[in-house]
Amino acid sequence: MAKISVGVFGATGMVGQTIVNLLDNHPWFKVTELAASENSAGKIYGEVMKLRWNASPEMPEYARDMVVKEAGFKPDCDIVLSALDSKVAGPIEQGLAKNGYAVSSNSKNHRMFDDVPLLIPEINADHVNLIKRQQRERRWKGFIVTDPNCSAMQLCIALKPLHDEFGLESVMVSTMQALSGAGYPGVPSMDIMDNVIPFISDEEEKLQTEPLKILGSFAKDRIMPAGFKVSAQCNRVAVRNGHLETVNVKLSKKTSEEDIIKAFESFKPLKGMGLPSAPERPIVYMRNENRPQPKLDVNAENGMASVVGRLRKCGILDYKFLVLGHNLIRGAAGAAILNAELLKAKGYIG
Amino acid sequence: MAKISVGVFGATGMVGQTIVNLLDNHPWFKVTELAASENSAGKIYGEVMKLRWNASPEMPEYARDMVVKEAGFKPDCDIVLSALDSKVAGPIEQGLAKNGYAVSSNSKNHRMFDDVPLLIPEINADHVNLIKRQQRERRWKGFIVTDPNCSAMQLCIALKPLHDEFGLESVMVSTMQALSGAGYPGVPSMDIMDNVIPFISDEEEKLQTEPLKILGSFAKDRIMPAGFKVSAQCNRVAVRNGHLETVNVKLSKKTSEEDIIKAFESFKPLKGMGLPSAPERPIVYMRNENRPQPKLDVNAENGMASVVGRLRKCGILDYKFLVLGHNLIRGAAGAAILNAELLKAKGYIG
Amino acid sequence: MAKISVGVFGATGMVGQTIVNLLDNHPWFKVTELAASENSAGKIYGEVMKLRWNASPEMPEYARDMVVKEAGFKPDCDIVLSALDSKVAGPIEQGLAKNGYAVSSNSKNHRMFDDVPLLIPEINADHVNLIKRQQRERRWKGFIVTDPNCSAMQLCIALKPLHDEFGLESVMVSTMQALSGAGYPGVPSMDIMDNVIPFISDEEEKLQTEPLKILGSFAKDRIMPAGFKVSAQCNRVAVRNGHLETVNVKLSKKTSEEDIIKAFESFKPLKGMGLPSAPERPIVYMRNENRPQPKLDVNAENGMASVVGRLRKCGILDYKFLVLGHNLIRGAAGAAILNAELLKAKGYIG
Amino acid sequence: MAKISVGVFGATGMVGQTIVNLLDNHPWFKVTELAASENSAGKIYGEVMKLRWNASPEMPEYARDMVVKEAGFKPDCDIVLSALDSKVAGPIEQGLAKNGYAVSSNSKNHRMFDDVPLLIPEINADHVNLIKRQQRERRWKGFIVTDPNCSAMQLCIALKPLHDEFGLESVMVSTMQALSGAGYPGVPSMDIMDNVIPFISDEEEKLQTEPLKILGSFAKDRIMPAGFKVSAQCNRVAVRNGHLETVNVKLSKKTSEEDIIKAFESFKPLKGMGLPSAPERPIVYMRNENRPQPKLDVNAENGMASVVGRLRKCGILDYKFLVLGHNLIRGAAGAAILNAELLKAKGYIG
Repeated sequence: MAKISVGVFGATGMVGQTIVNLLDNHPWFKVTELAASENSAGKIYGEVMKLRWNASPEMPEYARDMVVKEAGFKPDCDIVLSALDSKVAGPIEQGLAKNGYAVSSNSKNHRMFDDVPLLIPEINADHVNLIKRQQRERRWKGFIVTDPNCSAMQLCIALKPLHDEFGLESVMVSTMQALSGAGYPGVPSMDIMDNVIPFISDEEEKLQTEPLKILGSFAKDRIMPAGFKVSAQCNRVAVRNGHLETVNVKLSKKTSEEDIIKAFESFKPLKGMGLPSAPERPIVYMRNENRPQPKLDVNAENGMASVVGRLRKCGILDYKFLVLGHNLIRGAAGAAILNAELLKAKGYIG
Repeated sequence: MAKISVGVFGATGMVGQTIVNLLDNHPWFKVTELAASENSAGKIYGEVMKLRWNASPEMPEYARDMVVKEAGFKPDCDIVLSALDSKVAGPIEQGLAKNGYAVSSNSKNHRMFDDVPLLIPEINADHVNLIKRQQRERRWKGFIVTDPNCSAMQLCIALKPLHDEFGLESVMVSTMQALSGAGYPGVPSMDIMDNVIPFISDEEEKLQTEPLKILGSFAKDRIMPAGFKVSAQCNRVAVRNGHLETVNVKLSKKTSEEDIIKAFESFKPLKGMGLPSAPERPIVYMRNENRPQPKLDVNAENGMASVVGRLRKCGILDYKFLVLGHNLIRGAAGAAILNAELLKAKGYIG
Repeated sequence: MAKISVGVFGATGMVGQTIVNLLDNHPWFKVTELAASENSAGKIYGEVMKLRWNASPEMPEYARDMVVKEAGFKPDCDIVLSALDSKVAGPIEQGLAKNGYAVSSNSKNHRMFDDVPLLIPEINADHVNLIKRQQRERRWKGFIVTDPNCSAMQLCIALKPLHDEFGLESVMVSTMQALSGAGYPGVPSMDIMDNVIPFISDEEEKLQTEPLKILGSFAKDRIMPAGFKVSAQCNRVAVRNGHLETVNVKLSKKTSEEDIIKAFESFKPLKGMGLPSAPERPIVYMRNENRPQPKLDVNAENGMASVVGRLRKCGILDYKFLVLGHNLIRGAAGAAILNAELLKAKGYIG
Repeated sequence: MAKISVGVFGATGMVGQTIVNLLDNHPWFKVTELAASENSAGKIYGEVMKLRWNASPEMPEYARDMVVKEAGFKPDCDIVLSALDSKVAGPIEQGLAKNGYAVSSNSKNHRMFDDVPLLIPEINADHVNLIKRQQRERRWKGFIVTDPNCSAMQLCIALKPLHDEFGLESVMVSTMQALSGAGYPGVPSMDIMDNVIPFISDEEEKLQTEPLKILGSFAKDRIMPAGFKVSAQCNRVAVRNGHLETVNVKLSKKTSEEDIIKAFESFKPLKGMGLPSAPERPIVYMRNENRPQPKLDVNAENGMASVVGRLRKCGILDYKFLVLGHNLIRGAAGAAILNAELLKAKGYIG
């Protein structure tokens, strides 16, 4: 089988380079274009990234000598994985879709559009059905799908089995988010060293709205948002990778800790679909009393798991627990790739 | 006026040395005894602390040549400020009280005893009335008062005006606690560097129970605990000093953000009492969108303030905000001193 | 006595704000102008710095409502303390000098000019004599004096008594430099967290050349550079403030450890001159085996000392030791102020 | 071929667990005994290490259910890899050797004994010849070989080709050493966060003496130490893994930078011996101006390389450069394993 050709847009950023790294030896995809802003256009990727590559000890062989293109509307590829800055992602991604490209975007621009899927394959694979409407109404030959904000991603995965089995009413979340979530150069060391910054611009809004669309249901060409409420407080901590969140939930149905853990551990909705980047266990539940910890657990399931722990009763809502995810992998680069794999499996590309 | 003589017990620990430091040139108190475990007994304080002193650039002159005593029942002082390890604090503090000493303790051992005040002068100065019962029932000439857990302290101060003016129903709190809260040697660097540890032994229990006693009311020789609920999640982060907490509250009475901020800012219950360590503003409300931050704000009011910020509506409970406090000063050493000052002002010592 | 009016140029940067902070209540100087790039010009200093002020818990009262001016050639002041970026400092500082202003600069631009003093008052106060030549040859009414690179400053102070008493032949230095030395936003947290960066652009060159001018002798309108050699290796470490350096020296004259320590401790060349910012002890020698440490010792003498420790024999050169200095205070802001004080004491201003 | 049975002594410490991790699926060795102090004896390794395992995301399957033995003289294995604390390693290792065991030790106790090889297979494989003398004089059936201190290891590897080709006269080294080098719990976070500690007990002595034995020559049953001098300054920095060292060297023979880099890059003394843990390139020379960095480069060659960079002229000695090594792998666990592999290849075991 010929591999599907992929363009990585925003390839020089933190998320972009993680995509480049994860696509090394991908069984279905082959990177044929690396695109970025005009600053890097025309240069050799290996040169541009010489001092900035930190996605792995060594840049994959395939990428080193590729010439970076300026992000445009006619790249040499079938599908674009977009990690573009949100300041420029809007018109570029729409231009690509208009020109017939499939776009799997990690940018926030189109996430909340009525006709754009905000996809997490384990949760709402059927939301891809929005693509037809999107193409019809916008007269596009291509299309755009998006993945969620990094702090919403890992939370939604943990919430999904709770919502399905016990009904979610309220979700309170307080985050301790990693530095890499702010990109590069990102957070100045003088701001965060020996400190916590209790504010991330726009983050609480995203975390309070995206989960409702993600866990919403598709019917008649639209998404009915889920009916629970989310209240979020977002903080930046001095950790390289891995957003850790304390969560409290109120459920519609009374249940036990055992049943909730069982729901977490039996959640394997993609089993058998053969998506190469899908984790075997989308939720890893840890039983140690002091876990999950970013340093020790962020790479569970190759960084594609939502790692949950310390489930216990809450005196105000019903239960509380922790959830950790790799913000650059599950929360961004790996998410865009997994969405592309879903599109392939469902016949939208390739 | 002759100064009151003070013994600092547990003087070689992190909290003890902070007490020693804060009592330098205290207008009412004079340190006449430094006591610790038998390891340090008989040695010169300046020598023992040579490599461990970090409460200030230079150890106060007065302490350098003092000989450390073994913590016993007949120290040379009127009042004991105890920062003893909870493993040994129980019998020693009781022995001291029996022998006629006033004990202002920072240890957890007696905090929840029915007849022991768990004091925050700004909140429950009248709880000192428990002392009479304590002395009567236990036939003690002296007595014990305690200050709360460091993460409870700053929270309770912020909650007090809310409880008084609007009625508290529920308090959800997620903490990001500083390293110094674990004492010395405390948290190994290999555990916390580039990491968060989402577990602190016993901390959530303390944070869920102490506030109810602290904000309870004294009547007929006992404390009626406050009626609200607290649910806590406690985390250790890589910050030297300053516990930062995200808080969500449900109030009995509808109110506006302006009125809550007004309640915070007008909270000055000790005004006019002249307690030397009392902060002018027990609550400092910050209006910047990204504050309070441990590194920048922990020393507000000489480390004796509860620094509050980012008050905003919560979609599940009523309001959410942040609260920061200096765990070693307001949350421990300064608290024990302020309690001693209250005892003096109320005529229990001196 | 009327205070001398001071303009702080580059007032919004890390060094600039430290100058603003140190000049609060200065006995001789009064800040009458704050200048920066056009981005900040016309704005209120308190507003501009709202999220960037970190020189102290609270910005000094006097600066809050001042309007920031664009750095120009006719500021409202007698002397300019310049913390301008080296990209723009050249023409601005020269324009000021031409227009009759005294300029005490922290920028690197004019440091190595033949007719510009590179001053450390404790070392080479007589180098101010270059000013006459500078004014004569350049036909300037004003003049420029400079202070050294932050890693050179603390080293030179420690070297001065060695050079005077025993003769320096070689100086080997390996640095561990603080984050604040790179300004703001400076070093990205993703680069330095859990890491060391063994490279600082141009730093080794400065550290190998500036000391020779600083410790050189003034004669007949020029500086004869000192004759020893310096070899430097510069590294950035995850420390907020305080450059720590390991130093090895070869001396012309055989001597003992005791005599070297005596030379360090008796070095008090400014004694009796009454310069307000001069440290009582320019060199603080610490006897503890594990000192100096940045966190514990950087504020010695209000951040104006060169803190030395661990003097011991070296098997290759003669002796080795450590030296620590506060890069923002002794190494930059405080240096520019102390130079201004020297100018005042010598009658060049005021 | 039957695998050789290995006992890991000190298996619960930081180095011990790294050995356990590296031996997972080793082609020649099979762990048959895990031994530690009496505290852990009798317990299941997976349980003992539950909260302390951090050598990898998951403990190797093989080790989880093994019962920890008390470190004794008759373990169930052919060779002992010892990561025992130096306080107890002396008599235990000697007892083992007496009883016929081969001991590959990482402890400092026997390193400088006249009849004990201090081995780095790339440098002094012929020092194994001391074993015969050791066995003869001590009447041991077994024997002890040792690996060097972690900061000496990486330095010696970089020095070896310089010494062979150009002759070493002097070596000046200033270290920035990682936290894991101090074991666990090791360095308290309150000591090192936002700090550098310029002192590591005994480290400078080791770094000044071990290289002379390591690079010495074997002749007539003894080691003639190398004739150059080493002067070291050792510092602890806030980095998890990877000792970084600045080095200055004086050479006997004039040479060029190109020739030195060529010497580094062509240094492959074990080529063709087939030792499973031997790095393909014992020295990795990096050409980027800001490398090597611990975070980015410590895992080069699976953590078994000495990573060198920034070679340049030194104005005092001849050349200066940086060297980085993984202190837990190349500097300890991997070293003990590689030594065992050498013993097997040379027929001393198996």
